[in-house]
Amino acid sequence: MSVDTLQYLLGMAGTVAFAVTGVLAVTPRGIDFFGACVLGLITAIGGGTIRDLILGVPVFWAADLNYIWVALGASFVAFLTERLLTRREIHRTMLYLDALGVSMFAIQAAQKVMWLDFGMPIAPILLGVLTAIGGGLLRDVLAGQPTLLKRRELYAIPVTCGCILYVTLLTWFPAYAVLTGVVCSLLILCLRSSAIYWDLHVPLW
Amino acid sequence: MSVDTLQYLLGMAGTVAFAVTGVLAVTPRGIDFFGACVLGLITAIGGGTIRDLILGVPVFWAADLNYIWVALGASFVAFLTERLLTRREIHRTMLYLDALGVSMFAIQAAQKVMWLDFGMPIAPILLGVLTAIGGGLLRDVLAGQPTLLKRRELYAIPVTCGCILYVTLLTWFPAYAVLTGVVCSLLILCLRSSAIYWDLHVPLW
Amino acid sequence: MSVDTLQYLLGMAGTVAFAVTGVLAVTPRGIDFFGACVLGLITAIGGGTIRDLILGVPVFWAADLNYIWVALGASFVAFLTERLLTRREIHRTMLYLDALGVSMFAIQAAQKVMWLDFGMPIAPILLGVLTAIGGGLLRDVLAGQPTLLKRRELYAIPVTCGCILYVTLLTWFPAYAVLTGVVCSLLILCLRSSAIYWDLHVPLW
Repeated sequence: MSVDTLQYLLGMAGTVAFAVTGVLAVTPRGIDFFGACVLGLITAIGGGTIRDLILGVPVFWAADLNYIWVALGASFVAFLTERLLTRREIHRTMLYLDALGVSMFAIQAAQKVMWLDFGMPIAPILLGVLTAIGGGLLRDVLAGQPTLLKRRELYAIPVTCGCILYVTLLTWFPAYAVLTGVVCSLLILCLRSSAIYWDLHVPLW
Repeated sequence: MSVDTLQYLLGMAGTVAFAVTGVLAVTPRGIDFFGACVLGLITAIGGGTIRDLILGVPVFWAADLNYIWVALGASFVAFLTERLLTRREIHRTMLYLDALGVSMFAIQAAQKVMWLDFGMPIAPILLGVLTAIGGGLLRDVLAGQPTLLKRRELYAIPVTCGCILYVTLLTWFPAYAVLTGVVCSLLILCLRSSAIYWDLHVPLW
Repeated sequence: MSVDTLQYLLGMAGTVAFAVTGVLAVTPRGIDFFGACVLGLITAIGGGTIRDLILGVPVFWAADLNYIWVALGASFVAFLTERLLTRREIHRTMLYLDALGVSMFAIQAAQKVMWLDFGMPIAPILLGVLTAIGGGLLRDVLAGQPTLLKRRELYAIPVTCGCILYVTLLTWFPAYAVLTGVVCSLLILCLRSSAIYWDLHVPLW
């Protein structure tokens, strides 16, 4: 299996995790089936869509509708099996899968922005973070919930650290693109998993 | 009167209805004149604007400013005559006109996406629904109200059914574009009107 | 110092003011360091970004990253020195600087739209207002606060008046572009400063 195939499959796993956590974040509050699927889909593809609009390139899902089908299917299943999924262990598993999705999407986005040579060196970091958290922000705004920016969860900061490291390393060692991407994805995954495991939050100043 | 002219006039009627229902949805809550006009305008043109950004084509109102003038004028009149318009019968009339607008805009949007051959077959459905409900979502978010996705109104589901049928029929019978559009618009209009008439809601699972 | 340099420096001063008032608007409500910087940045560049997406041109900060650095730096300093800045006199100073930013950005945006000959004559006014207030709207939505449209502050109306006057004057006297811009910016600044000084609000009808 090539690096590209693996990356694609991990991206799909991240899409599933985003859609499922999106549905789980809103279902207990009396949302209907249609709303759950829309919010699951928006969580999964919202961040990347805003990134592509800002970059001025065609939205990523126009060329590969699998993102849409997978997100809709995962939202559908998540809505139907919601009671099962909120069981503590399964919910935890989804959080870790969501962390995997975040780590993949952020680095992929930073990579895409660097390839386009768009607003170096700060734009790849900003748009990496935006891709990772944008879908969740949209979902929370549409569902009338406090957004991530108000929750002091240790979520965006690991992503930001990973993207900063990625851009720094790739500027210095452009020959090791794949290795750098893997290392920075793993860094985000580790930091975010630690935050989930020990229930870490950002301290108030 | 040609089909195009009729469609254009119906589109303008829909714009008026969107702007007026947008203003009516926010005026009782101490909003001022300026805010009412902005929210009426956003309700009327917001969905189509987001659709065009995602499609990567110029926004529809840049080429035909009548949409802006009509939406602003309707918002203005709606704000001034608000007491008159909330009278039960007139309010009901506006809801039916809004249903007409939704049915027109959703099918027109699906048609536009299909012409551009963008993300077939799922994108025309998604963007048809987005065009129909996007303006209302933006308005509710900006006005700090619960959005459609939380209200369990039978609003987005008729639109989705109509768009799915439209894409299906047009894929099988590409020769009957006009007829298909009329039939699917009427389907959305009937379903939505039934929901208004009998006050139908989406059941909670 | 040329007109362009002066305009650029005033634009940067406006960016600082937008970022700082953005941070000040959200810090008392238990937001963390990361959230404050993101919301300061969004307040500073959000309106112009939406304008450029609608215009279909590259976002303004892609070509000049100073906007990002200045906004992030100002947000950072504002978060750290928040107790100092909310002291009444300093807070007032920031409000006047914000008024300067609004007056600069609105007219610059209207100018940009007119140069592109986009949707004359109404689009320059709409996008001028959007550029001035869009960042603040995004911030309030993401921070879960009532937006400007609900607060009846005399904020958007001075901007609208200035933009309408600018487009009108420039259509009649195209030779006096710089003078017209200065006059209309000053008009917005005066109206908005009066509103801050006398604490004026939009009356309820």
